[in-house]
Amino acid sequence: MLAGNILVTGTNRGIGLELVKQLAQNTAEGAHIYACCREAEGTRAEALRALPTQYPGKITVIKLDMSDEDSISAAVHAVSRQIGADGLNLLINNAAVNKPASPAPLSATGKEHMMEVYETNVAGPFILAKMFLPLLQRAAERGSAAKEMGNTMSCRRSAIINISTLISSIEKCPETFPVAQMYPYRTSKAALNMLTRCQAEDFKMHNILVTAIHPGWVRTDMGGEEAPLTTQDSVHGMLNLMSSLSNKDSGKLLDWQGNIIPW
Amino acid sequence: MLAGNILVTGTNRGIGLELVKQLAQNTAEGAHIYACCREAEGTRAEALRALPTQYPGKITVIKLDMSDEDSISAAVHAVSRQIGADGLNLLINNAAVNKPASPAPLSATGKEHMMEVYETNVAGPFILAKMFLPLLQRAAERGSAAKEMGNTMSCRRSAIINISTLISSIEKCPETFPVAQMYPYRTSKAALNMLTRCQAEDFKMHNILVTAIHPGWVRTDMGGEEAPLTTQDSVHGMLNLMSSLSNKDSGKLLDWQGNIIPW
Ligand SMILES: NC(=O)c1ccc[n+]([C@@H]2O[C@H](COP(=O)([O-])OP(=O)(O)OC[C@H]3O[C@@H](n4cnc5c(N)ncnc54)[C@H](OP(=O)(O)O)[C@@H]3O)[C@@H](O)[C@H]2O)c1
Ligand SMILES: NC(=O)c1ccc[n+]([C@@H]2O[C@H](COP(=O)([O-])OP(=O)(O)OC[C@H]3O[C@@H](n4cnc5c(N)ncnc54)[C@H](OP(=O)(O)O)[C@@H]3O)[C@@H](O)[C@H]2O)c1
Repeated sequence: MLAGNILVTGTNRGIGLELVKQLAQNTAEGAHIYACCREAEGTRAEALRALPTQYPGKITVIKLDMSDEDSISAAVHAVSRQIGADGLNLLINNAAVNKPASPAPLSATGKEHMMEVYETNVAGPFILAKMFLPLLQRAAERGSAAKEMGNTMSCRRSAIINISTLISSIEKCPETFPVAQMYPYRTSKAALNMLTRCQAEDFKMHNILVTAIHPGWVRTDMGGEEAPLTTQDSVHGMLNLMSSLSNKDSGKLLDWQGNIIPW
Repeated sequence: MLAGNILVTGTNRGIGLELVKQLAQNTAEGAHIYACCREAEGTRAEALRALPTQYPGKITVIKLDMSDEDSISAAVHAVSRQIGADGLNLLINNAAVNKPASPAPLSATGKEHMMEVYETNVAGPFILAKMFLPLLQRAAERGSAAKEMGNTMSCRRSAIINISTLISSIEKCPETFPVAQMYPYRTSKAALNMLTRCQAEDFKMHNILVTAIHPGWVRTDMGGEEAPLTTQDSVHGMLNLMSSLSNKDSGKLLDWQGNIIPW
């Protein structure tokens, strides 16, 4: 079971919303969820805004636009103030965009799509992790617990989970490309995998685990109506997986059932 | 031996300049080299500007800034006018940046570096290839030669070579990361590898070969003075390799000696 302070981005709909729901239900006593959302006041965030009332004291909604560095900085400061000495145990980079509209063939894709998708899907998670690093370190080092844990990494201790995708796999491109071209999304998620592996190397000295997870093909606005998986099943699988991750999984790309996906 | 119309980006220094020199010396009769450079008039392009006089009729210098879509569009139009019915046989995406200055640790790296490096190293090559696609197709289909060649791909017929790097390899990150962090450069080149593999899938129906090549660690402004390889040896190896590439190499990442590098 996951525990401590957990932050999730892109939580007003889709997989992010379901992550917040299941984390509110299935985390240890004292856990707190920071549910980030770029338009926390709008009608598109109504379902999210209902959750803190349903789970009193367990959820804080935070305004966060991953494409805006000032917004990231403001969110990190707001969370830091509330978290205090405990640090951040788990950062889940879930927010992402896929432009132009699926299947996004080359002919419909421009430079602006390449830049916008990279900004939200890679530069955003890069900056967010960099700014949260002191809080993630604090969680990893906290009190006597840290001594007992030695160099054992886990999502309960301190971790970054970057939500990637099967179609980030360069190796599997020949299988997946005919179904969905999506140059901007694919290149961004391959870059996110590299970011994951670099962070895993960089942060292992702090005992911070970093893993990329593919949620499966899930029925959301992004996944579409034909997708076989519900958000419930995907998130149930991913949270189970996160609870079980340890040192050997850091720097890997795993699917929601724990299978390794090649780069 | 390479032949036909060949375009190289980033040719005023380093590997790009040496590519133009050796192509001018070692291509078949009638070959023409389009040597692109973002400041074709400045003092930093003097060595390049001397080459067309040394190899009369063989080289055209073209102004091209890979971070500027209008500049890419203007360069494609200028080349198209000159090439006419023959098409473009070989597009070498060589220009790239690495920011901030090496070893580029996380602490020195900002969002602006992530965005700038991606713009030049990935969005630029993406747009350039998209705009040159009709000319690459024309070269692949040209005249009776095309019928004889069937579906055989080669750099003489029609190809895109994306200059990548060993440190684009996500798999090899644990070995290479301690030496050079370079988050923006690494994520951009992993994305360039994905672009390469997508283009290889997308363009194989047109018989256009697409391969990523690592030039080795080369003594240039980017490679630094400790690098073991000269531009001469690296480029000699890469041109030999390009001459030998065929269908099985499309969608791969190879080093300058032809060894496969894992994604
Ligand atoms: N669904 C699938 O089949 C599938 C498969 C593989 C991987 N994934 C990955 O799973 C994750 C969640 O996908 P999903 O299917 O739940 O997508 P979704 O239904 O399209 O939801 C995307 C979420 O990201 C948020 N978002 C987008 N841009 C943002 C920004 N600049 N700042 C803050 N939030 C932003 C959206 O907020 P707004 O409402 O404000 O736009 C929304 O909450 C993504 O990383 C996606 O790549 C999904
Ligand atoms: N050297 C190595 O050890 C090494 C190793 C692996 C891979 N590589 C790759 O090999 C290629 C060439 O590297 P190099 O060592 O020759 O680098 P370099 O000495 O730094 O030269 C880079 C070239 O790219 C040009 N360039 C940069 N930004 C540009 C832009 N926006 N528009 C047009 N041109 C631009 C530069 O022009 P300006 O003079 O105008 O800046 C210069 O001509 C790169 O793709 C690099 O990633 C090099």
